[in-house]
Amino acid sequence: MVEDAVGLGAVTVLGVLEQAYFSLQVIYARRKYSVSPPTTSGPPEFERIFRAQANCSEYFPIFITALWTSGVFFSQGLSSVCGLLYLYMRLRYFWGYAESANGRLAPLYVSAQVLWILIGFSSVGIFHTFCRVYLNVDLLQELGFALGLL
Amino acid sequence: MVEDAVGLGAVTVLGVLEQAYFSLQVIYARRKYSVSPPTTSGPPEFERIFRAQANCSEYFPIFITALWTSGVFFSQGLSSVCGLLYLYMRLRYFWGYAESANGRLAPLYVSAQVLWILIGFSSVGIFHTFCRVYLNVDLLQELGFALGLL
Amino acid sequence: MVEDAVGLGAVTVLGVLEQAYFSLQVIYARRKYSVSPPTTSGPPEFERIFRAQANCSEYFPIFITALWTSGVFFSQGLSSVCGLLYLYMRLRYFWGYAESANGRLAPLYVSAQVLWILIGFSSVGIFHTFCRVYLNVDLLQELGFALGLL
Repeated sequence: MVEDAVGLGAVTVLGVLEQAYFSLQVIYARRKYSVSPPTTSGPPEFERIFRAQANCSEYFPIFITALWTSGVFFSQGLSSVCGLLYLYMRLRYFWGYAESANGRLAPLYVSAQVLWILIGFSSVGIFHTFCRVYLNVDLLQELGFALGLL
Repeated sequence: MVEDAVGLGAVTVLGVLEQAYFSLQVIYARRKYSVSPPTTSGPPEFERIFRAQANCSEYFPIFITALWTSGVFFSQGLSSVCGLLYLYMRLRYFWGYAESANGRLAPLYVSAQVLWILIGFSSVGIFHTFCRVYLNVDLLQELGFALGLL
Repeated sequence: MVEDAVGLGAVTVLGVLEQAYFSLQVIYARRKYSVSPPTTSGPPEFERIFRAQANCSEYFPIFITALWTSGVFFSQGLSSVCGLLYLYMRLRYFWGYAESANGRLAPLYVSAQVLWILIGFSSVGIFHTFCRVYLNVDLLQELGFALGLL
């Protein structure tokens, strides 16, 4: 089990480190723009950084969940690669949003697409496992058999 | 392991899809009520949809955590059924909250109760496993023995 | 698998219960200070409790993720102890923040340090597993061999 998940584990730890980096940026922005907790509104520069971090935090559990269901039920390698791409796009999203509200859009779209790919992988993997366990049907074998008939 | 968790995995992917649906509703509401990021305040109609999504996002990791601890340590079948009920109630909560602040209450209470059931299952399952692993006591067997003595 | 994770499972359920407790405090504060949803601003007493809960919720998935990667790839015992300490510090953070904005700082720093320790454990454990699985190198054995040469 541990052996089959070391790639997912590595991407997960990178993701946690990225969230820690975003949190630190909010702390620095609070100091720079003099916005003391519990206040969360201030100059647009502060609000953009605050919202960028809030948005990444909100998606973090969804990302981790999709990464692991995709990695466990579909493919660890493909999921880990997608995970790295997602984390890189989130970094570019954060930097872009800190610059301007428009700067967040391009990397946000790519990160959303990567998340959809992970969700697709998870769905395929779970459907395949479900058929194998509960219906005793191996879809890959059936597919190979069907292709052989052609 | 993968075989024992396919039901939990399916509920998890449904939960991720539900969160994606909520996020899309916030994007549509931002357009409809002209509330551009990073602003999060606007007309009450927008704020209700925004808060409904924020609340569901906040509870998502708690739900996923309780679903899996309950499924792994107690029963996959019962946990998956509770998980489906929770996700359905969250959908009704979101729709109800979008209508009116009061509309969120009834499904919120049910979803909270389902979450408590999952927490209860987790606690029982973990306590049982703990007794078996560290105290070498099988509570189910002891219970059966005690009942047999009556 | 289940046997090796019962400590992590117990800390996880405690963490879920703590989040439930924080959520209840926000509900009580909403009643006490008459702040009806979807509004999230009000008197500073309310805003501190609201932000304390929001901050704990934001860190909850990061904590759970670090707890499990550390527990699975490094050591269940050490991770569980760190997890208990983290949850205790989050409780003191919440109570401190409810009193005053300054009251949150000391326990926040300790909880952040415990989180860094869990991230460190995870990194070491994943690096060690990676070397063993993909490079066929057992770092512990190599280290013992190197020490034996001295």
